[in-house]
This record gives sequence, structure tokens and C-alpha cells, in this order.
Amino acid sequence: MTEPRDAYRHFHPITTRWADNDAFGHINNVQYYAFFDTAVTAWLIARGFLHPTEGDIVCFVVETGCRYFRPLAFPEPVTVGMRLEKLGTSSIRYGLGVFGAEGPAAATGHFVHVAVNRASGRPVAIPAPLRLALTQL
Amino acid sequence: MTEPRDAYRHFHPITTRWADNDAFGHINNVQYYAFFDTAVTAWLIARGFLHPTEGDIVCFVVETGCRYFRPLAFPEPVTVGMRLEKLGTSSIRYGLGVFGAEGPAAATGHFVHVAVNRASGRPVAIPAPLRLALTQL
Amino acid sequence: MTEPRDAYRHFHPITTRWADNDAFGHINNVQYYAFFDTAVTAWLIARGFLHPTEGDIVCFVVETGCRYFRPLAFPEPVTVGMRLEKLGTSSIRYGLGVFGAEGPAAATGHFVHVAVNRASGRPVAIPAPLRLALTQL
Amino acid sequence: MTEPRDAYRHFHPITTRWADNDAFGHINNVQYYAFFDTAVTAWLIARGFLHPTEGDIVCFVVETGCRYFRPLAFPEPVTVGMRLEKLGTSSIRYGLGVFGAEGPAAATGHFVHVAVNRASGRPVAIPAPLRLALTQL
Repeated sequence: MTEPRDAYRHFHPITTRWADNDAFGHINNVQYYAFFDTAVTAWLIARGFLHPTEGDIVCFVVETGCRYFRPLAFPEPVTVGMRLEKLGTSSIRYGLGVFGAEGPAAATGHFVHVAVNRASGRPVAIPAPLRLALTQL
Repeated sequence: MTEPRDAYRHFHPITTRWADNDAFGHINNVQYYAFFDTAVTAWLIARGFLHPTEGDIVCFVVETGCRYFRPLAFPEPVTVGMRLEKLGTSSIRYGLGVFGAEGPAAATGHFVHVAVNRASGRPVAIPAPLRLALTQL
Repeated sequence: MTEPRDAYRHFHPITTRWADNDAFGHINNVQYYAFFDTAVTAWLIARGFLHPTEGDIVCFVVETGCRYFRPLAFPEPVTVGMRLEKLGTSSIRYGLGVFGAEGPAAATGHFVHVAVNRASGRPVAIPAPLRLALTQL
Repeated sequence: MTEPRDAYRHFHPITTRWADNDAFGHINNVQYYAFFDTAVTAWLIARGFLHPTEGDIVCFVVETGCRYFRPLAFPEPVTVGMRLEKLGTSSIRYGLGVFGAEGPAAATGHFVHVAVNRASGRPVAIPAPLRLALTQL
């Protein structure tokens, strides 16, 4: 069910925070989505494909999901693995895995973006440069 | 795809927070899972089925997912609808919907708990009183 | 050191969330600032003095502080009390108190906004309508 | 008002997250306290002075504060500088600074812990090994 590191192509390191741990002393299930959101957004921003306040195109999140295999806890840092799972005309499905210091993914998930026009909010075709970068992910 | 309020049986009101809005000015996709987590946990705590630090049984989250249909934004309050979707020997699948002031669900999702022994972390059968309460959800 | 409810003029109710509780089972110290931020921002938005993406003026936070008197915990809801503490040409100091279901403030704090031009980020005089509303707070 | 890096003795690196940015596109004022809380707690845990669920002594946060000098934004990572500012019988005041990639502190603050008995919640004297480690901070 879980997956090894080599099932992913790009890796984004994230430091955990004290308040990520909930009352059970483990990183709360919600925070894994902050890890996904951060890894995907950082990848897009670093390549110039997304900007919070500029550009014609923004990406809306339309679906996310996560399966949890073993608990993680602050202060252990995590690494998010990313890969492309599906590329449609306007939509991108990323596959994601959250790794602790060692072992297979503690959690795996997916994250679906739809490219939309910033002003209208209507779906638009994924621009060619982003499409090319994604096919290499 | 989305669902009306009457597709849910129990409702939990949540006030939104300024920082729920991300740089796009909408409630960030991650926060919907905080809404799910809060609604489910509040339901269990209010009925005496879960306690952060006491009791033999705790619930581990093993899978979650969400589909987003339209954006919401602070300061609008939300309501989370809950229903039972599946009840196994040790596992509970809740169906959840996040509603704004009006209209069908802005997002729908699911949340799967497994009852485990607090000390061993091993799955245990869901106790009869919790099973009964769930079948009425 | 702490203060009663009648030391405040405006009240903003906030529902707590499961993940507000940290590994010690109490609402984490950080979240009190989310309560302050939410109460102040909601007050400004509700009166038309602040908009996330429109208007010439935005408010930058330049100083905040909090003293904690007793722990609170999810699922208990909280109420934030607000008052004006100091009004300068461009700056506003709010006094804030976080209340549980009963008793004096569990925490008290302050929050200092400076009105700035959205484009330049330079301080501007607080507009007369906002100044008037603040003096009644 | 702000301070250079060499005003601090210990440094804790933190990766920022997409959702740290609020609707103004900057790291929200609240998150600086998550940075403080994380740096202090990581320092204590790494040296064996704090454990979420074990040990006779826990630390309660009784006061925090922050002044903000310039905005920071995801995806820029931050570094938290720490120093001891005051050491009482049961209380510890840490001085903290949040640094971006370059320049003086974008924000400075303080964080006051009181050592308490885990069971009673009553203040206790800071144990000698922790006192020694703090005097070297």
C-alpha cells in the first residue's frame, strides 16, 4: 500500500512544527495536506509557473486525498515526494508521499489542480511550458 | 457531484479565521480537513466516546479525501454535515460536507477512523455503545 | 492581572478546532493570536474598513503580545473581547481578551495595526470614518 | 529596533508553507509565534529537557510578544535566532528573532516559559542541568 522513495521523482524537504502534533502527540492528519500543498506550490513557483498575485493563470485545487500508514511526530523533519499521475487539458493530478527520516512513505496522497484564468475563474488549457515541465516530473 | 444539506444527518457549525484564507483570498484547501477533523472529533467527545488523554480506545485516521466545488472565504462561517458511510469491525467511514451560508456543499469528503487500543496501537472492535450511536448518524 | 468581560466593548465568538490543542492537550499558545487576528479583522471587514483584495488602505500588523492565565481546550468555544487602547495618526492599538465559557479572561493581549497605502506600503492617516468607529470601540 | 544575527546564540531553520501566507500574500503575523514555539521546543527536546508525554516537568507558556519590521513570504525559508534573556527560579525568558535569507531580523520577540510539575501544574524550580544549558544559550 505504501511506497518507497524511488516511486517519486522530485523531493521537497519540510521542517515540522511543535503545533503540528495534536493531542495524541503525532502530526495531525490535516497537516499532511499542508505538506502536499507546500510541495506542489513550491515546485510551481520555483519554475515560474505560479505567482500569488500576478499572471493570467492560477491553479484551483479540486480534489485531494491521503492514506496514512504510520504516525510521524515533531521534531522529525519530513520530505515530500512528488510525481505526475495524470495530465489532462486543464487538470494536473500529482501523486505525493510523505517520508520521515527512513523507510517507505508514512502517508501517500494525491492533489488535483485545474488551471483557471485568474479573472474569470474559468478553466484554461495548461500552457505548453508547464505541460513540458510536468511530463518530466 | 455536490450534495444538499439533507444528505447529512448531523451538523457542526465552525467559525472561519482570517488566516484560513490563503494568498488567493479563499479558504485554503487544507483547512477543509481541519473542519472535518473538528466535526468528527467534537461529535465523539460530546458523546463520551473519545478523550484526548484518557480511555482505552483512541481513533487513528487512516484515510481522508475531499472534492472542492466552489470557494469559500473568511469571514463567512461554515457548517459541516456528517453522516455514517460505512461501519466495519474496527473502522468507521464518515461522509462530510462543508456548507456556506446557503446552497449545496462547497466541498464534500470522507474521513476513515480505526479504533485502536491506546497502549498497543492495535485495532480493536468498536464498542457497542459507539456502534449504536454511529448507526443513528 | 487578568480582566473581566466588562473590560471589553465588542465580542467576537470563535469555535475551537481539534488541532488547536497541542501535545499537552491545551489550546496552543500560537492560536490565541489567530483568535486576536480574526476578531480584529472581522470587525474591520464587517464595517467595510478592510478588504483582502480591494481598497487603497490595508492594515499591517506591527506588534502583538499575549499573557496567558489559564489553559483552554477544544471543544470549548471561546469569545474574544476587544477594545481600543490607543489611537495614533496611522496606528491603532487594540486590547484583547480571550474568554472561555465562564470566568475572567484566560489570556489578554494587544494587537497594533498601522494603516498603509496598499500600493506603496507607506503609512497613511487613518480615514475619518474608521477613526470614528474606533473611538466608539 | 531590529537586530542582527549576531545578537542571537542558537539558530533553528524553518521551512515556510504555502498557507503561512495570508490574503495579503505575506506570512501571517500569527505564524511567527509558531516559529518561536517550534524553535524553543526543538531546543528543549533535542537536549532531553522536554518530552510531550513523559517526565515530571513540562513548560507552560505564560507570555509571548512580537514586533514586526518587514514582511516575509513563502517560499522563502526562515531562521529563528534564540538567546536567553532572563532566568528566574521557575521562569525562562527567551529572546527570539526571525530572519529571512539576508538582512537583520524581520521580526523580534520574546517567549516566557514557566517550569511546572506535569501532574499538579504548580511551578517548580528549573532543574540544574536545564539551568546550566540555558546559561550557555
